[in-house]
Amino acid sequence: MTVAAQMLDTYPKDLGGVDKQKLLECIEACFECAQACTACADACLSEDMVAELTKCIRSNTDCADICDTTGRVLSRHTGYDANLTRAVLEACAAACKACGDECESHASMHEHCRVCAEACRRCERACRDLISSLG
Amino acid sequence: MTVAAQMLDTYPKDLGGVDKQKLLECIEACFECAQACTACADACLSEDMVAELTKCIRSNTDCADICDTTGRVLSRHTGYDANLTRAVLEACAAACKACGDECESHASMHEHCRVCAEACRRCERACRDLISSLG
Amino acid sequence: MTVAAQMLDTYPKDLGGVDKQKLLECIEACFECAQACTACADACLSEDMVAELTKCIRSNTDCADICDTTGRVLSRHTGYDANLTRAVLEACAAACKACGDECESHASMHEHCRVCAEACRRCERACRDLISSLG
Amino acid sequence: MTVAAQMLDTYPKDLGGVDKQKLLECIEACFECAQACTACADACLSEDMVAELTKCIRSNTDCADICDTTGRVLSRHTGYDANLTRAVLEACAAACKACGDECESHASMHEHCRVCAEACRRCERACRDLISSLG
Repeated sequence: MTVAAQMLDTYPKDLGGVDKQKLLECIEACFECAQACTACADACLSEDMVAELTKCIRSNTDCADICDTTGRVLSRHTGYDANLTRAVLEACAAACKACGDECESHASMHEHCRVCAEACRRCERACRDLISSLG
Repeated sequence: MTVAAQMLDTYPKDLGGVDKQKLLECIEACFECAQACTACADACLSEDMVAELTKCIRSNTDCADICDTTGRVLSRHTGYDANLTRAVLEACAAACKACGDECESHASMHEHCRVCAEACRRCERACRDLISSLG
Repeated sequence: MTVAAQMLDTYPKDLGGVDKQKLLECIEACFECAQACTACADACLSEDMVAELTKCIRSNTDCADICDTTGRVLSRHTGYDANLTRAVLEACAAACKACGDECESHASMHEHCRVCAEACRRCERACRDLISSLG
Repeated sequence: MTVAAQMLDTYPKDLGGVDKQKLLECIEACFECAQACTACADACLSEDMVAELTKCIRSNTDCADICDTTGRVLSRHTGYDANLTRAVLEACAAACKACGDECESHASMHEHCRVCAEACRRCERACRDLISSLG
C-alpha cells in the first residue's frame, strides 16, 4: 500500500461520493508526471540538439507545474469544491495532452521523451477518468 | 517599471498577438494573490476561531498553488499554446472566485481575509480580461 | 522499475560521481513526503481538535513545499552545483526533522500523522544519506 | 502599501522579535526573483544561442523553485521555527548567488539576464540581511 493510499485511508472525515480508487490513481499519476516532466525538461537541456527541443522543454515545465498543483489540490478533501476540482483537472488533462504529444514526437530519438510521454498519457487518462466519475 | 514588466520587455522573440498590458497585469496579480493566499491561510490558522475557518484555509491553499502555477505559465512565451493558456486561466479564475467569496464572508471579522479577498477579486478579473483578449 | 528510475537511466549525459541509487531514493522520498505532508495538513484541518494542530499544519505545509522543491532540484543534472544541492538538502532534512517530530507527537491519536511522520523520517534519512555521499 | 505589507500587518498574533521591515523586503524579493527567474529561463530558451545557455536555464529553474518556496515559508508565522527559517534562507541565498553569477556573465549580451541578475542580487542580499537579523 503506497503512502498516498494510506493518507487517503486515514482522512478523518467522509470523502463524499468520490470514486476513491480513481482519485488515488490520479493523485499518484500527477506526482509521477510532475517528476517525469521536470526530469525530461532537464534531459532535453543536455541534448546536443537542444535548439530543436525548446518547445518540448517549455511543455515539460508547464506540465510539471500543473501536475504538481493538481496533485496537491486532489490531496485535499476539506471543504470540497466540485467546480474547482473539475477546472483544475481540465487544465491538467490539457497540459498532459500537449506535453504527451510533444514528447511522443521525439520518442524515437530520445528515450527520456518516450518515458515522459507515457507518464503524460497515464496522467491525462487518470484526469479524464476522474472527471467522468465526478458526474 | 516592475521587474515583471522589464522581463516581458526583454523577451527576445515576438510575443504573438497577445495584449501585453493585460498579460503583465495578470502575471503580477497571480504572484500577488499567491502570496496573499499563503499568508491568509496562515493568519486564519492563528485565529482563536480557527475551527470556523477550515474551509477558508483550504480555499486559500488551493488558490495559492493555482495562482503560483498560472503566474509561471504566463511568464513563459516559447512555443505558446493558446488552448493550455485558456484552460489554466479558467482554473485560476475559478479558484480566485471561490477563495474571494469565502474570504469576503469573513472580511468584516478578519482584516487579513478582507485584504486577501481583494487580491482574489483583482486576480480573477485579470484572468477573465486576459481570457477575453485571447479571442 | 519506477518512472523516476527510468528518467534517471535515460539522462543523456554523465551524472558525475553521484551515487545513483541514493539519488533515486532521495528523489522518490521527496515527492512521497510532499504528497503526505499536503494530505496531512488537510487531514489535520478536518479534525475536530484542529485548534490543537495548528503548529502541525504549519510544519506540514512548509515541509510539503520544501520537499517538492528539493525533489525538483534533484531531478535536474545539467550544470550540477554541489554547493546548492547540499544547501537544499540541508533545508529539506531540517524541514523533515521538524515535521516528523511534530507529527510523531500526534501519531498515537491521528493515524494520518503516524503515516506522515514515517514519510518524513524516510525523507530526512534519504537527504542525510545523499549529503554524506556527496563527500 | 503593498498587499504583502498589508498581510503582514493584519497577522492576528505576535510576530515575535522578527525585524518586520527586513522580513517584508525578503518576502517581496523572493516572489519578484521567482518570477524573474521563470521568465529568464524561458527567454534563454528562445535565444538562437540556447545551446550556450543551458547552465543558465538550469540555474534559473532551481532559483525560481527555491525563491518560491522561501517566499511561502516566510509568509507563514504560526509556530515559527528559527532553525528551519535559517536553513531555507541559506539555501535561497546560495541559489540566488549561483543564478546571479551565471546571469551576470550573460548580462552584456542578453538584457533579460541583466534584469534577472539584479533581481537575484537583491534577493540574495535580502536573505542575508534577514539571516543576520535572526541573530
